[in-house]
Amino acid sequence: MANSAYAQLENVIGQITLYQESAAQHAKAHSDQLTKPIGSLGKLEEIAFRLAGISGRLWPNLSRKAVVVMAGDHGVCEEGVSAYPQEVTPQMVLNFLGGGAAVNVLARQAGADVYCVDMGVNADIEHPDLINRKVVRGTANMAKQPAMSRDEAMQAIMAGIQVADELAKQGYRLFATGEMGIGNTTPSAALTSVLTGLSPEQSVGRGTGINDESWRHKIEVVKRAIAVNEPDAADPIDVLAKVGGAEIAGMAGFIIGAAANGCPVVIDGFISSVAALVAVRLAEQVKPYLFASHLSQEQGHATVLESMGLSPMIQLDMRLGEGTGAVLCFHFIDAALKLMQEMATFDSAGVSRE
Amino acid sequence: MANSAYAQLENVIGQITLYQESAAQHAKAHSDQLTKPIGSLGKLEEIAFRLAGISGRLWPNLSRKAVVVMAGDHGVCEEGVSAYPQEVTPQMVLNFLGGGAAVNVLARQAGADVYCVDMGVNADIEHPDLINRKVVRGTANMAKQPAMSRDEAMQAIMAGIQVADELAKQGYRLFATGEMGIGNTTPSAALTSVLTGLSPEQSVGRGTGINDESWRHKIEVVKRAIAVNEPDAADPIDVLAKVGGAEIAGMAGFIIGAAANGCPVVIDGFISSVAALVAVRLAEQVKPYLFASHLSQEQGHATVLESMGLSPMIQLDMRLGEGTGAVLCFHFIDAALKLMQEMATFDSAGVSRE
Repeated sequence: MANSAYAQLENVIGQITLYQESAAQHAKAHSDQLTKPIGSLGKLEEIAFRLAGISGRLWPNLSRKAVVVMAGDHGVCEEGVSAYPQEVTPQMVLNFLGGGAAVNVLARQAGADVYCVDMGVNADIEHPDLINRKVVRGTANMAKQPAMSRDEAMQAIMAGIQVADELAKQGYRLFATGEMGIGNTTPSAALTSVLTGLSPEQSVGRGTGINDESWRHKIEVVKRAIAVNEPDAADPIDVLAKVGGAEIAGMAGFIIGAAANGCPVVIDGFISSVAALVAVRLAEQVKPYLFASHLSQEQGHATVLESMGLSPMIQLDMRLGEGTGAVLCFHFIDAALKLMQEMATFDSAGVSRE
Repeated sequence: MANSAYAQLENVIGQITLYQESAAQHAKAHSDQLTKPIGSLGKLEEIAFRLAGISGRLWPNLSRKAVVVMAGDHGVCEEGVSAYPQEVTPQMVLNFLGGGAAVNVLARQAGADVYCVDMGVNADIEHPDLINRKVVRGTANMAKQPAMSRDEAMQAIMAGIQVADELAKQGYRLFATGEMGIGNTTPSAALTSVLTGLSPEQSVGRGTGINDESWRHKIEVVKRAIAVNEPDAADPIDVLAKVGGAEIAGMAGFIIGAAANGCPVVIDGFISSVAALVAVRLAEQVKPYLFASHLSQEQGHATVLESMGLSPMIQLDMRLGEGTGAVLCFHFIDAALKLMQEMATFDSAGVSRE
């Protein structure tokens, strides 16, 4: 399957519409007629320009929104890197499907639907609304061997693309990425170190709240995972397979698939951002489709965002994942578009210019 | 009128319900049962706790929301401190009343109403929806004399309190402060310097976008205003009168009035924050009622927020005023309350704890 999967991936990447600077400039020209000092709406203006640049329209209709929460387990939990037991991953998946998690509350508020995808949970989950794309039953322990085979990583990427295709076909036009996977800040830190060159001391954060000793242990585990597997930084699929995770690979694929369908994606915290970086390394042209939401308290996050030229919109000190930060930013995407559509111009309102 | 106004102000301040730490702790105890790592929702949790602390309820109903935009002109514009002509103030007031300004668009999105108050515009504005509380027809040029008399400053504060009373009586429970006043970053910088001890070099920002020369000129003007008037930093009303403005005084009064009615207030950018600082200096107990929205690009803003122990929720690089940053944060206030009300608990969802 591998060869045809690579051809399919190349094909999807080829479908991504390149950024149209002229459409973005057209949006800017419109914005500069509105009753405000030029540029005074800051990032809300940049959002509107970028949405024009990717859609080719002054104000694309992004009213149908979804948060896609991808779940997976991590063999590296054997090393004691998380404060929570692995059973929490399937429990939280059921919580997402039952509508009781934080992301469900925030999605309802923002008029978005939540979809939950099992990419690699280490349990059998039965629920009619679960999207089952299980590639592995938890990854292997990357501190001892590759987390996944290269084929599994490719399968996970392609599954993510398919989910994006299906949701786009259903009419969704704006996405947020979210994830759930006990232990997944550890592969995220490893991916960050390999892809950005940051040392594990800089890429490893405190996850859901661990103490100094656990933090040093986590750094050791990441170092070991990199030393044992020798991932090739120039080959994002190799890196994903060796020190990544199924939900991270799924999100990377999802982002590429969303871009191929012309849909912008708001990325959430550290783990989503790492997945986005993998997507960008696979296909540079997804970059303008990405919007950063917040800077989590995970140390490596800032570097990951900077490496994609992204800066966060909110500073709420959140460290939950699930897509909670991203879905809050749907309000700002809506706001940016509404401002462009509804504000009066200097002429229409009879307001003097500078 | 002066003596009775002071007595009235003291009376209103006396009506502010003190923060109830036990109610905040009750909210925290509830929050810690919800399916998320403790504290992982960051400031959204803090918002919920603080709302409980001021209301005495686990989840107060804040569904009726209003943005109050106070407008005033500034004699100091004679000194050439703004890139825009003064006529823009009444033009923008009509734009607010017509629903075409940025704050109107964002308020509609957030389910909030916009009220516009003429506190001191240098023009006659006729509109059925305008709340006319004009105290001055533009302030005097503070670079040469006090911007207002002490009586005028008191009148403006009391007018702000009355507006809060009237809106609270109409059922509004959550407010945002906004302002419009060509030139009003200059008195705001002067107020910041006097009230926080920051030098004019540190408190003067670029306003709506001025060049280096104009910036140095603005610093000179602020220095002159302080030297000429010698405001007494220990007497907030003296400072407001001498180097403030009618809309700033109105907002300070509005904040005190909102707190006296038990209503939280989201403050906007630099000018709103300076008004909040004046309110806090007049009545320390308003502090827990205040929520900061964003850090504008005005230099002194960070110091003003820190001096009240507040930190911003959004980082959108906005510098428009009008209440635009504050109204965007209504979504987060709603989110904080919905999370408390709608999230599943560990027990109800069958999720394991740490």
